Parts: sequence; structure tokens; C-alpha cells
Amino acid sequence: MKREASEARDAIVARIRDDTRRGASELARDAVSALPDFAELLSDDVLPEARRLARELASTRPTLGAIGGLLDHCLRELPSDRPPHAAVRYAAERTLAWAQDASERAVSHAVDALHGAKAILTHSRSSTVERVLSRLAPPARVVVSESHPGLEGHDLARHLAENGAQVDIVTDAELALVVGEVDAVLVGADAILADGSVINKVGTHLLALAAREREIPFYVCAESFKLTGGTSFEPEEHDPNELEAPEIPGIRPLNYYFERTPAKLVSIYLSDVAIEDEVELPPKRR
Amino acid sequence: MKREASEARDAIVARIRDDTRRGASELARDAVSALPDFAELLSDDVLPEARRLARELASTRPTLGAIGGLLDHCLRELPSDRPPHAAVRYAAERTLAWAQDASERAVSHAVDALHGAKAILTHSRSSTVERVLSRLAPPARVVVSESHPGLEGHDLARHLAENGAQVDIVTDAELALVVGEVDAVLVGADAILADGSVINKVGTHLLALAAREREIPFYVCAESFKLTGGTSFEPEEHDPNELEAPEIPGIRPLNYYFERTPAKLVSIYLSDVAIEDEVELPPKRR
Repeated sequence: MKREASEARDAIVARIRDDTRRGASELARDAVSALPDFAELLSDDVLPEARRLARELASTRPTLGAIGGLLDHCLRELPSDRPPHAAVRYAAERTLAWAQDASERAVSHAVDALHGAKAILTHSRSSTVERVLSRLAPPARVVVSESHPGLEGHDLARHLAENGAQVDIVTDAELALVVGEVDAVLVGADAILADGSVINKVGTHLLALAAREREIPFYVCAESFKLTGGTSFEPEEHDPNELEAPEIPGIRPLNYYFERTPAKLVSIYLSDVAIEDEVELPPKRR
Repeated sequence: MKREASEARDAIVARIRDDTRRGASELARDAVSALPDFAELLSDDVLPEARRLARELASTRPTLGAIGGLLDHCLRELPSDRPPHAAVRYAAERTLAWAQDASERAVSHAVDALHGAKAILTHSRSSTVERVLSRLAPPARVVVSESHPGLEGHDLARHLAENGAQVDIVTDAELALVVGEVDAVLVGADAILADGSVINKVGTHLLALAAREREIPFYVCAESFKLTGGTSFEPEEHDPNELEAPEIPGIRPLNYYFERTPAKLVSIYLSDVAIEDEVELPPKRR
């Protein structure tokens, strides 16, 4: 492989690996977009190398199942009747258009489900949730948790406020204190496992428990490419220095970004497909 | 009142009002200690002014019922057969000795209850919990949440680690992710209301919900002077700038420090009295 191609490959892998601010949908689209640009730099072995890069990108963030899900979709779209470079570009474009349509349908379902809600609570930042909240008419008051240490809740709050919404920012610890004041909780997902459990930013599970206790509906808005069919979940550990803990012997900071929220805590999945039919849901238990 | 006395009064009121790092037990002891020093600066109206200061101190942090509880205890101890200055000093000393004994008995109960625990999770910082954790033999691994934005969990972690404990620091959002790995959850309390609900740092309610879901015992260690008999709870709001939220129109940071955790989520109260006999517990419901 030419040096230019291998450098491009390393750059996109690093970009996906190190981006802790964007959600899984955005990263998945970025990964798919990178395939044809990478392919252009190859003179031979185009399809095998594109497939290898897709596998590498998926495995660099296994927690974020959406990345592998959308890349798999792209590989399945590869046409056999075109030259390899054109085939990769065609598959990527088809996949991005399909993902766009899936997002649009998931967002529409959520907008319908939240019609009339006066106040909505969300955690962390999801591009899908951001689109839903931006589209509600009349706009709902939004309560956003900061999502420490990345504070991506601030980015979401800024975006919504700049578009005219009233936004309350709370600490992650305040989620139980405020959940009783909203009409619904809405979160995105980085992946949905075979049992319907939802992989999302840490704090989501706490929020789901608090919502259930107060009988506030807990909605998950996510596209079907987040369905991984997976059964296990390994939490993704990030730089412990982000916690700025005292650096003395005996102290170990644990900086996990994602966690699994059980399906029994989800009121409704809002998606482009009927998620309930795609997973094996356990019996509800309250 | 002499200027010296009124300045001393203002100083102790400000100290109790503005201290967001120490827990309710420590602040309560500080408030009681201040009474005789204040009384020394008075030439007349000693007992009425001491009572007035006690009421003012209690009402400056109504959420932290321990402060009012210990001051009430002190006022009840005032002997009628001594000169006023001596009476205030006597009552304060008796009260501090009694509080010390109450703490010691609560701590002993907790140490007994946690005997053999290999890992314990706590939230925020409580002087009572700190004493329990320091006294466990063999020492347990301790998981401490940071308690953003004050980060007083860091102080607790530092203290424990300096005394030889192994301490994991987690974000508040990670509480559900880690609760399944410990043998017990142990928290303190700033007050206990008439229905047994526990006033403590925000995040405690989330932690209690997560512990219940994983069937991990949730212990509350608190002295009897934290029983306020109160039925309502007004969350104490602190400086919104602590959240460092984007300062643009439409964004409102909500910085509440304390919340109420329902009694049904408490496995056992560890105290100097049988708390269960002092409150009206609701029927347990899982």
C-alpha cells in the first residue's frame, strides 16, 4: 500500500478512536464517508483493503455498535458489477443516504411521541436527540445534564439555546431531583444489544431508574443500524487523568464512558424499524 | 450588643452559611462550639442572644437538619442554676460530648455491620462515613464518587488513601456501573425526616436506586441529632456559576446540593438510637 494510503488509514482510525465528543451516529457516518476517500488512494487490492479498514474502524470502538452496524451495511451494498473504486463510492453514498433516511424516520417518530410535552430531560449529547428537540413545535423546555467530565451536555444546551429553546443545565447527580418535573426523558443510543438493552453514556442507567420510580416515560431514539445483535458489553475506559483525581498512591480513577441500561427500563424505542420485533425483550418487571 | 459581639455573630453565621465542603455533623459541632465564644463577648442578655444566634444558625441551612438538631439539644442542656456565660459553656461542652458519643456509637454500629466487606461504595463526603471506613479491619477497598461540582469525594479519597486504603474514584454518572461490584453502599445524612427519608448530597437517591436494582445493601450511618421530625424539604440552591455552563440567553444552570432519598430504599439505619422506632416508615415496596 502506498504511504499516502496508509497514512490516510491511520488518520481516520485515530479520528474515530479519539473522538469522545461526538455520538455514535455521527462517528458511524464519518467512518463510512472515509472509505471511498481511502479507496481513491489505492491502486490495487481496493475491496480487500476497504473491507480491512471497515473492520479496523468497527473494532476500534466496539462499544459504539452503530459504527460497526453502518459499516456492515456499507459492505453489503458493494455492487459486484462496478470497478472497485466506483463500487466503494457507490456503496458509501447509498449507505449514507439510507442512514439519513433511517435517522429522519426515527426522529419523526420521536417528534410525534413527544407532541405536547412541555418539558423533556436528556442526558449527554446525541445528534438524533438534538434533532428531535430542535424540531418540537411548540418547543419544550429542555433539561440537560452536563455529562461530566466531557461536558458535552454544554454543547447540546448551547445549540438548543441558540435556536431559541429554554434550557436548564443540571449536574449528573441532580438527575433524580429533576426527573419528576418533566413529561418525558429522551436519550439516544450508541448501540442496542440482542436483549434490547441500550448502550449509552454513563448516567443513562441511573436516569432510567429515576424515571421509572417517578413513572416518567423513558424514550430511546435510535436508528436500526445501532442494533448489533451482540450479547456482551465491555465498558470503554478512557484517560483516567480526565477525572483530575488526587495523584497519590492508593487512588485509582476509573473513567468509563458507556454503560448498559436494561430493556425493562425502556418505555418505548423510537426508531426507523420496530425495535421490539428485532430483539428478545425480557418480561417487564417493575 | 457590642460591635465585637455582633461581628463575631456575623462571622459564624457566614462560616456556616458558606461552607459547602463540610458535612452536616461537622457544621453542627462548629455551630455549637461558637455559642460560648459568642456569649463571652456579651455583657447582658446572654441567654436570649445565644438562643437567637442558635435559631439564626439553624435557619441559615434548614436543609442540614443536623445543625438545628444539635443546637436544640444544646439549648435544652442550658442549666438554670449557673450564671449565663457559664451556663452556655456548660451546655455546649455537654452537647459536644454527647454528640461525640452519639457519633461513636453510630460509627461502631456501622463498623460491625460492614465487618468482612471487601468493597464499599460511598457518595460525597461524610465525616461519619470517613470514620467508619478508616476503622474497618481488614480495610475494605472503597469506591468514592467525586461529587461534582464540589469534588469533596476527592478529599475523602485522599484522606483514606493517605491512611493506606485502596480507593477507586468514579464520576457521579458511573454509580450504576460500579455498584454491582461492591458488598455494600454506605452514606451519611444531613438530616432524617419524620418519614425516615434521608437528606443527603444530590446523587444519593440515584445511588440508592442503583443499589436496590442490584440488591446491594444501602446503609445510612447518622447520629440521632439528625432526626428533625420535619416533613418537607426545600432543596438548597447554590451559586449557579459553579456549573460553568455556557453564559448565553436561554440557559439556566440549576445547582442544588441536596436531595431526599425515600426510606423504602434504605436497607438499615446505623445510628446511636433505633431510627426505625423514631420515624414513621412507609411499607417497603420493591
